[in-house]
Amino acid sequence: MAENRRFILQRRPSGTPAAEDFALVSEPLPELADGQFLIRNHYASLDPAMRGWMDDAPSYMPPIPLGTPVRASTVGEIVASKSAEFPVGAWVSGLNAIEEYSIGMAGGFSQIVDISIVPSPTNFLSVLGAVGMTAYFGYLEVCQPKPGDVVLVSGAAGAVGSLVGQIARIKGASKIIGIAGGPEKCARLIERYGYDAAIDYRGKSVDQLTAAIAAEAPDGVNAIFENVGGDILDAELNNLAMHARIGLCGLISEYNNPGEKTGARNIWQLIVKRATMQGLLVADYVPRFGEGITEMAGWLREGRLVFDEHVDEGIDNALPAFLRLFSGTNDGKMILKLS
Amino acid sequence: MAENRRFILQRRPSGTPAAEDFALVSEPLPELADGQFLIRNHYASLDPAMRGWMDDAPSYMPPIPLGTPVRASTVGEIVASKSAEFPVGAWVSGLNAIEEYSIGMAGGFSQIVDISIVPSPTNFLSVLGAVGMTAYFGYLEVCQPKPGDVVLVSGAAGAVGSLVGQIARIKGASKIIGIAGGPEKCARLIERYGYDAAIDYRGKSVDQLTAAIAAEAPDGVNAIFENVGGDILDAELNNLAMHARIGLCGLISEYNNPGEKTGARNIWQLIVKRATMQGLLVADYVPRFGEGITEMAGWLREGRLVFDEHVDEGIDNALPAFLRLFSGTNDGKMILKLS
Repeated sequence: MAENRRFILQRRPSGTPAAEDFALVSEPLPELADGQFLIRNHYASLDPAMRGWMDDAPSYMPPIPLGTPVRASTVGEIVASKSAEFPVGAWVSGLNAIEEYSIGMAGGFSQIVDISIVPSPTNFLSVLGAVGMTAYFGYLEVCQPKPGDVVLVSGAAGAVGSLVGQIARIKGASKIIGIAGGPEKCARLIERYGYDAAIDYRGKSVDQLTAAIAAEAPDGVNAIFENVGGDILDAELNNLAMHARIGLCGLISEYNNPGEKTGARNIWQLIVKRATMQGLLVADYVPRFGEGITEMAGWLREGRLVFDEHVDEGIDNALPAFLRLFSGTNDGKMILKLS
Repeated sequence: MAENRRFILQRRPSGTPAAEDFALVSEPLPELADGQFLIRNHYASLDPAMRGWMDDAPSYMPPIPLGTPVRASTVGEIVASKSAEFPVGAWVSGLNAIEEYSIGMAGGFSQIVDISIVPSPTNFLSVLGAVGMTAYFGYLEVCQPKPGDVVLVSGAAGAVGSLVGQIARIKGASKIIGIAGGPEKCARLIERYGYDAAIDYRGKSVDQLTAAIAAEAPDGVNAIFENVGGDILDAELNNLAMHARIGLCGLISEYNNPGEKTGARNIWQLIVKRATMQGLLVADYVPRFGEGITEMAGWLREGRLVFDEHVDEGIDNALPAFLRLFSGTNDGKMILKLS
């Protein structure tokens, strides 16, 4: 255990990340200082937001420094400790990095988790992790659901989107429409996640997407949970109901585009419909995670939430596993097994 | 008084409206039906929003039908009446059209106004009209001002923008920055409307505008009142403070652009700063206009609000007067004198 394999960012990607942007290095573990503990990372969460952290651009977090491991949420077990609060044998989850071992400290990003309440520790990276809390707080706080809402979710087969549709159902939406890429994902939206309708965006122009949404929501959409951006957002803006609320969670269609951003071309419709578009970031809700985990865990026990995890194995597969998020070849929350 | 000259939309403009899109016709006045009254329109309001009404596109109002006069707010005097509520001699303001005479009816768009409370009846088309109410309700309800806010207004020398800056001052903003075109307007922002800083957008790229705003608001902008869109909005999005509120009032930079819309390319910053962009339309606040007129009239009497009107004369000047709004050659609220 003297060596730690780490997935290092050695060059900032231009567009889609390439193998040359990263290096897998093996480094000796440093000695623990007082108050620190050593986490054996069993699983790392792979999320679209990580692509933004690789850029040298102002964002809600500083860029990942070159020469350091790629920032990621992990779940793992404490294997050595100089902190009384974080004893050996406890499991923790938090914002660490894609590396076999991370050093934590009290007051840092790691929280002890009770893995006995879930079937797998990976669940703390999915339904009870940042992904689940993004769906929960993003939908409830930013989309401001009202019973009877017609709800639209883009990236609906993704880790966040699949949960948003189910939370919308629990909160009384009258119709839940998902947008996803390809017939298999669209089928899964309806059969597995309980969406009422699924729209396959592939091969559709903005006008065609606009018409496809209008066919499902002839009176417009009351709440939108946006993960994708680009043409999909433009088509959504053409289908707003009066006073619609758009929660802007992500813009995955733009993350690997080094050129000019598309943004939202149809914001005129925000005026026409007196609608609101609001950015959301799960980090704002960290102080309320306990509340979210409790309610989501309850829904899980009651069988009202299903979710999927896609686990790829091995730190040497970090890049191809990460790129699944952009090719859409993952079937559920993307997780990398590190142990 | 048997003839009524009317400024008719005879073809939908492509891009900037041209003379061939309109016709000045003279038509006989119809007989009044019971409940109707005849308004001698003395003044018509010319507003950027009218450009949108000329298009055959879904919006918050139906398009102006071809062959009918161009819709506009007017102020005028009742010269004949078959309505007890709207007697001859009363002045009314409301949504009518660019024509010498309009027919009103009880329960329609016209409201009786007391012209004795203002220096000129035109004021009911400017500071106490839709323009003033847009500034008042848009800023207070959508921008949600807080004392100490750094406030940014685009189109700041315009009819709405010049009032927003002054209302922001009354409501305790710590710094009020205006964006306008050209050194004369920028000087007027500071000398006449009390802005703290003025940025001339002309000849500036998005990056240069971004830097110019950052120089005035190094900690970001808390509230934005947006009238312009395009590059200016993109630069503003690069300068948001956390939880910034953007009131989207207009996008004048796009109204005469028949091609693809620019929209807002930097909406990623809404996520980074958990900011809100909300469309606003003064029509939503009609039931509260009394409240707004009372407070604005009070500020006027106290000398806390100044405003400018630019009156062009004659219905045969309707088009060049309207086009001033887009060339920026008007000095204040654009009004056409019809009598």
